[in-house]
Amino acid sequence: MSSRTLTAEVLSIGDELVHAGLIDTNSSYISQQLGALGVAVQRFTVVGDDPDDLQEAIDGACRRVDVVIASGGLGPTLDDRTREVVAQVLQEPLRFDEDSWQQVLAWFTRHGRTAPDSNRRQAELPQSATSLSNSVGTAPGFRALVHSAELFVLPGVPREMKVLFADHVLPAVRRLGSLRPTAQACLRVLGPSEALLGERLGKFMLAGANPAVGITASGGLLSVRLVGTADSEAAAAALCEQTAAELRPVLGEWLFAEGLKEVPEIVLERLAGQQRTIAFAESCTGGLCAARLTDLSGSSKVLQGGVIAYSNAAKVELLGVPESLLEAHGAVSEQVAAAMAAGARERFSADCAIATTGIAGPAGGSDEKPVGTVCFALATANSSGSTDSRAWTVRIPDLGRRFVRDRAVHEVWRSLLL
Amino acid sequence: MSSRTLTAEVLSIGDELVHAGLIDTNSSYISQQLGALGVAVQRFTVVGDDPDDLQEAIDGACRRVDVVIASGGLGPTLDDRTREVVAQVLQEPLRFDEDSWQQVLAWFTRHGRTAPDSNRRQAELPQSATSLSNSVGTAPGFRALVHSAELFVLPGVPREMKVLFADHVLPAVRRLGSLRPTAQACLRVLGPSEALLGERLGKFMLAGANPAVGITASGGLLSVRLVGTADSEAAAAALCEQTAAELRPVLGEWLFAEGLKEVPEIVLERLAGQQRTIAFAESCTGGLCAARLTDLSGSSKVLQGGVIAYSNAAKVELLGVPESLLEAHGAVSEQVAAAMAAGARERFSADCAIATTGIAGPAGGSDEKPVGTVCFALATANSSGSTDSRAWTVRIPDLGRRFVRDRAVHEVWRSLLL
Repeated sequence: MSSRTLTAEVLSIGDELVHAGLIDTNSSYISQQLGALGVAVQRFTVVGDDPDDLQEAIDGACRRVDVVIASGGLGPTLDDRTREVVAQVLQEPLRFDEDSWQQVLAWFTRHGRTAPDSNRRQAELPQSATSLSNSVGTAPGFRALVHSAELFVLPGVPREMKVLFADHVLPAVRRLGSLRPTAQACLRVLGPSEALLGERLGKFMLAGANPAVGITASGGLLSVRLVGTADSEAAAAALCEQTAAELRPVLGEWLFAEGLKEVPEIVLERLAGQQRTIAFAESCTGGLCAARLTDLSGSSKVLQGGVIAYSNAAKVELLGVPESLLEAHGAVSEQVAAAMAAGARERFSADCAIATTGIAGPAGGSDEKPVGTVCFALATANSSGSTDSRAWTVRIPDLGRRFVRDRAVHEVWRSLLL
Repeated sequence: MSSRTLTAEVLSIGDELVHAGLIDTNSSYISQQLGALGVAVQRFTVVGDDPDDLQEAIDGACRRVDVVIASGGLGPTLDDRTREVVAQVLQEPLRFDEDSWQQVLAWFTRHGRTAPDSNRRQAELPQSATSLSNSVGTAPGFRALVHSAELFVLPGVPREMKVLFADHVLPAVRRLGSLRPTAQACLRVLGPSEALLGERLGKFMLAGANPAVGITASGGLLSVRLVGTADSEAAAAALCEQTAAELRPVLGEWLFAEGLKEVPEIVLERLAGQQRTIAFAESCTGGLCAARLTDLSGSSKVLQGGVIAYSNAAKVELLGVPESLLEAHGAVSEQVAAAMAAGARERFSADCAIATTGIAGPAGGSDEKPVGTVCFALATANSSGSTDSRAWTVRIPDLGRRFVRDRAVHEVWRSLLL
């Protein structure tokens, strides 16, 4: 097995994923982690708790690939059946694992609670399986050899899955194969449509290219992702950088950020590195800019605060926008955006402030200002210590309220990074 | 086929889903839509653009079930290969569909642009396939009989997928089977752990129960979902209501909302129905409450605005919290929460206001106020027209920054619904 690429499939288990609208994020996380090790993930399968469906899915995956990472169905309730079904696939009985039970009891003790009897189910394992300890929750995982595949079964709760993945799966997968190193890069782009960008980058995106180049689109943000493979991580990184250097002039002013981190994290690090503080004055984005930044630990050093000024009265009262400006130009105007940003910068005593005011839709559009019209302003200190505001307008395609708001937030990040 | 339950699988296609961290939301949407028709979705598969992997996934799904809904890989770029691969599975050539091409050209004309030549790929179809028109984007879908399954192939962009699903798939699936009607219900619960709730509801959750009862957990919010099946939609709804009536006394004060809508939507409708306006004063939730409410069209009638008061200075300057309160009790205190809510209500001239102040972590906890301590206040008008504030504290389990923030937002919604 050590001389070739390991293949893998990812399996997410639970009726709530198949029938009740809960979105599977585990597969994507697991695949990215395995991909960074050079393991070729070929497929995700999401299946409910029905024993027959689940048995066929586990059996099929374990016949196709070298490594199968499953998550979900390890809870204490009767609709959690992964343990039994894996035992069936293995044609083995379940055994009660005393060590696992002691771990479950210890978790409850640490949290000042008593373990309900139903949690005893969580200490059962297929006969030949090995328990995987869970330091952050009650459900131990397990590992077993099924057909010719190494099957890892992890809890479905993303936070717990990630801890068990790091503690148990990563080291084991590293041992399973002598894996060919990979490196990744990502260029963030705002401006063109996905098709136009794809046409411009066509010659980089041919099947088999190394690094492989792909484009993903989310809320108007286009991400150009590179994955290089070579004999060393440094050589793979060099391949990525070589192609990135060819891409930069093609992307031109569309390119506004680079790196594998999410864009709000890049913004936060940039501002923290410059020891600059920021405030937001949000109308059409309604708190999204602040919410995405405050999702990140450490944001309190950079973010002074924000005002969500949905009504005109709020723009006047809380941000000091002159009523005359609102009357003369309307709430969605560069003049009002500039006054909102200046007001936020002064009231929060921040180094800079960003304002958004626009028409997110579906209602509120006009011929002159159709849905998707968003005005922005960035207020900064000028050399005499008072406030300079720079305002601009973007006509965002009306692809729905969420798209317009998301795209407006990306525009805010871009203005802070350029 | 008309006398039994139709079975279905959902297939999402694209390297960006398998390798690049983009999350598949299409499968969940499609499954819920099919589930409401009584079609039993057995599995989702997510597969990349590699022709061999894709061919095996399409072939396998079309051998297992009656209906396969695939999305993705219909774009204009060279890494979009779904059309070719379906033709291979069918052992057919591709044909150029002039009608589809005219639709692509018309879309570009409507948007004041010229179609790049690469878009011609989007008008190619397997020989025996039927084109499915796309009124909101450039990629037409198609439909073909593969083995014994009806295969529908839709664009991957969620907005376009949803339109083609409604226009083409729903009517066709209704014709394919005489489907047994279902009804759904959902009870929202805050308080117990998932295991404790599962134990209390164990007797309702046995395999084969009608309605089927399942529990899902997200950010501390537990959702008890019921799916009933009967000879008429009304009878299925009556089954759900009968079980819901048994569940309510078991859930007691944990239960705070009912219905299939998302909780922020229920909150918005409640406030709109009461003609009440609201404002937010957010510290630890950092704009999340406002962002989730403003995601909804019509929120401007209810939401006056909000202040994100991350720093103490912002609490004093923008919300009028007395400095003496901050010094005496600290920023995370019921006293400060009450003053923040009262300040927001008055400054935004809102009927009510909610404040949050707490320790989201990972830093900032102490023995007295550990990470997860969140103080809330609800300010309303009293009979004399001035402000009454009610404050309370919740110790949220420290399951990470996002969990604490999400759970705090759910607590806000609960306080507005009870």
